[in-house]
Amino acid sequence: MNKVSGLTFLLLLSIFSNISAQQEDAFFIRTIYDTALLDGSAYDWLDALTNEIGPRLSGSTGAAAAVEYGKQMLDTLGLDSVWLQPCMVPHWVRGDQEIVKIVNSHKMGSMTLKALALGNSVGTGPRGLTAEVVEVKSLDEVDKLGRDGIAGRIVFFNRPMDPTQLNTFRAYGGAVDQRALGASRASRYGAAAVLVRSMTNKLDDVPHTGGLRYEADVLPIPAIAISTNDAELLSELLRDEVIRVYMRSTCQLLEDKLSYNVIGEIRGSEKPEEIILVGGHLDSWDVGTGAHDDGAGCVQSMEVLRLLKKLNYQPKRTIRCVLFMNEENGLAGGRAYSEYALKNNVFHLAAIESDRGGFTPRGFTCDGDESIFKKKFKKVNEWLPLLEPYGLQLEKGGSGADISGLKPQKGLLFGFKPDSQRYFDFHHTPADVFDVVNERELALGAAAMTTLVYLIDFYGL
Amino acid sequence: MNKVSGLTFLLLLSIFSNISAQQEDAFFIRTIYDTALLDGSAYDWLDALTNEIGPRLSGSTGAAAAVEYGKQMLDTLGLDSVWLQPCMVPHWVRGDQEIVKIVNSHKMGSMTLKALALGNSVGTGPRGLTAEVVEVKSLDEVDKLGRDGIAGRIVFFNRPMDPTQLNTFRAYGGAVDQRALGASRASRYGAAAVLVRSMTNKLDDVPHTGGLRYEADVLPIPAIAISTNDAELLSELLRDEVIRVYMRSTCQLLEDKLSYNVIGEIRGSEKPEEIILVGGHLDSWDVGTGAHDDGAGCVQSMEVLRLLKKLNYQPKRTIRCVLFMNEENGLAGGRAYSEYALKNNVFHLAAIESDRGGFTPRGFTCDGDESIFKKKFKKVNEWLPLLEPYGLQLEKGGSGADISGLKPQKGLLFGFKPDSQRYFDFHHTPADVFDVVNERELALGAAAMTTLVYLIDFYGL
Repeated sequence: MNKVSGLTFLLLLSIFSNISAQQEDAFFIRTIYDTALLDGSAYDWLDALTNEIGPRLSGSTGAAAAVEYGKQMLDTLGLDSVWLQPCMVPHWVRGDQEIVKIVNSHKMGSMTLKALALGNSVGTGPRGLTAEVVEVKSLDEVDKLGRDGIAGRIVFFNRPMDPTQLNTFRAYGGAVDQRALGASRASRYGAAAVLVRSMTNKLDDVPHTGGLRYEADVLPIPAIAISTNDAELLSELLRDEVIRVYMRSTCQLLEDKLSYNVIGEIRGSEKPEEIILVGGHLDSWDVGTGAHDDGAGCVQSMEVLRLLKKLNYQPKRTIRCVLFMNEENGLAGGRAYSEYALKNNVFHLAAIESDRGGFTPRGFTCDGDESIFKKKFKKVNEWLPLLEPYGLQLEKGGSGADISGLKPQKGLLFGFKPDSQRYFDFHHTPADVFDVVNERELALGAAAMTTLVYLIDFYGL
Repeated sequence: MNKVSGLTFLLLLSIFSNISAQQEDAFFIRTIYDTALLDGSAYDWLDALTNEIGPRLSGSTGAAAAVEYGKQMLDTLGLDSVWLQPCMVPHWVRGDQEIVKIVNSHKMGSMTLKALALGNSVGTGPRGLTAEVVEVKSLDEVDKLGRDGIAGRIVFFNRPMDPTQLNTFRAYGGAVDQRALGASRASRYGAAAVLVRSMTNKLDDVPHTGGLRYEADVLPIPAIAISTNDAELLSELLRDEVIRVYMRSTCQLLEDKLSYNVIGEIRGSEKPEEIILVGGHLDSWDVGTGAHDDGAGCVQSMEVLRLLKKLNYQPKRTIRCVLFMNEENGLAGGRAYSEYALKNNVFHLAAIESDRGGFTPRGFTCDGDESIFKKKFKKVNEWLPLLEPYGLQLEKGGSGADISGLKPQKGLLFGFKPDSQRYFDFHHTPADVFDVVNERELALGAAAMTTLVYLIDFYGL
């Protein structure tokens, strides 16, 4: 009963009325929510991270400032230890504002499109390039067109996200291969460059950046995202005429830089060797200020530790917050963390990543090694009566990019799952700023994560 | 099987594979969602209603324009009938911009507060009034202070909404008596006027208006809402000093005006005498453009009829859309409608109101006469396996102000229940505009309502 020392009321209630364990849990969870809503820190932290520090692309001064800020904030929480875990991160810089221009349309004349180079992309060089555009809807279509249809051209990937998917992440997953691998595929057939339709359901003028990956054996070619409205326009023009486009970008990949994951923990009193990790990623894109992606996940993860301390909860297991570096364009932090954990047998009983925005919580996705998943997931589902009053459901599904490397340890991996409808309005754009995050929604997410951490800590898996 | 004539695929599927009724339902519901998301009209209608017509306070030109617009839009849907139902509505006008000013603080000097007169309030007259402020947290506290503590003073109602309520409507319900009845209570003891803390969980500079009701036997006194930040400030000042406030408002209640509920229906093919009503309210406050409150509910209700027509669904029962007038400051439309229904035995098997904003759907609240509720609600719950994949739950709870008068008919009354976290950021303020409504969230609400209408129509209650 001393799991909540300080909550004398609970103690007395339990002595005099024999309340059940489930009532105790329900009471403690209610206290977590009340504290998050009445006396939360997540929103203020996010304000500082986005409005004072700003964009935090790996290798940038903003990213370095965010590492220092994260460490300083964790230092204020009275944790058992706070430290930095080094990792070498790619240092990509955007350079000049991109230019993408239709140069010869009979219908439209010359026209500038709303554009953002994709992260990790090479630039066109300062003089730019001009080529004929060929539109495709998939990587396969590039293969079909072959060298005859592709060589020397700009390949325009224009398959939209599927708006009928209720879970917008599923729609994203069904379209993002174009952004991630389109340049590599087009390069195999001698393309000059690629344009990619922005990853959003919204029809608007906001281009969305995001990472691409050049396969090892291809010549890197420039890749730029254009807004969905401009993608629709370009596609319409291509129906009737040959369109040539001028592209200019001066982005480049500089030398790798030293950066860090930021880590803080409360050491477990009974099983300190079993770690329950909560985390988000500290880096963001260079446009916007990464408020939903993933400032929200970072401050929620810090808030989990703050709430447990504030409620004088002494965990049995070690509760560790990790603010990962470089999720957006390399995953260097996530890889460094998994390597350290696997190499040193630092066992993660569970890990929870919040990287789907600071919206109203709907529950958690859950993943794990096949050999243990069914049994452990069943146990977690026994907690549903405690979670459902807060609108939280559980489902099988991927957890988070930064923690997925821990899967071989055979703990459970969770992804915090907020409502997904608005996420891709902001994702990887200048619009992902503090003002589009709602204070209550953010706080409810932190409370949901704290609740799950508490249940895993108290009952094990 | 001809419930979906035109969906040949479904027909063939059913003939050749003996698919179950539930699979058929699931397929049709999926089609409803796909159509709402791919080819919805709700968002465009809301754009016109808010950005072209604008505010729609009862008795205003905007309200008259909205009646005409609603009718014209329903006329485009090929319904069996569209008509206007007259009702006399109060015609309250705000007059000049309100002034609320602290006049004598030693700490702050003279200071203007962010203020909006409450709807239906009398004005102070053009010269305004100045009086000492007394802060209370409840109507009861006014009784306790009595004439000695209240007479000649401005009573400042400052009990906040409870932020720990996850359902913000419950928090609103726990505080709104101050706005609705504070002026009447204070007037009984001779108060000069009242100030009311705005109804929101947010601490900001935006005052929220809303209706008050003068009890028949009291002298009407002026009532003005101030922003939560200003309420906090005023409360802090009152701890240390006597504060006098100057209030000026020129609002007034003019003569009642003729207005209308806008009604359109698809006549049932088998039981036309059983009506399933969907509705929202067409009027709004004079500040903002009533996008969430309740433009969203109106366009969603219209969309239910449009979707059913678009999918060639021929209902067994009569599906009726009602855009109610004057929910905000009188409920004249709702009363006129219920009176007509009760007097003429126009039986409503079910009624669904959407008046909690255009946010991501979470389900429906359900209400009904005690004699029938349990049995009918049980039947509705049998549909949960069809609703849950769309994040929809069912719970016992109030339906909507406009339809609650239908309860004696012993049908079921539903309130559409979207996520409530952001609603009171905008409610009754200049910030309730088109741009704070998300297209997908709005469309999902229309699809959820259409789904429930379909199930009630096909299976009865």
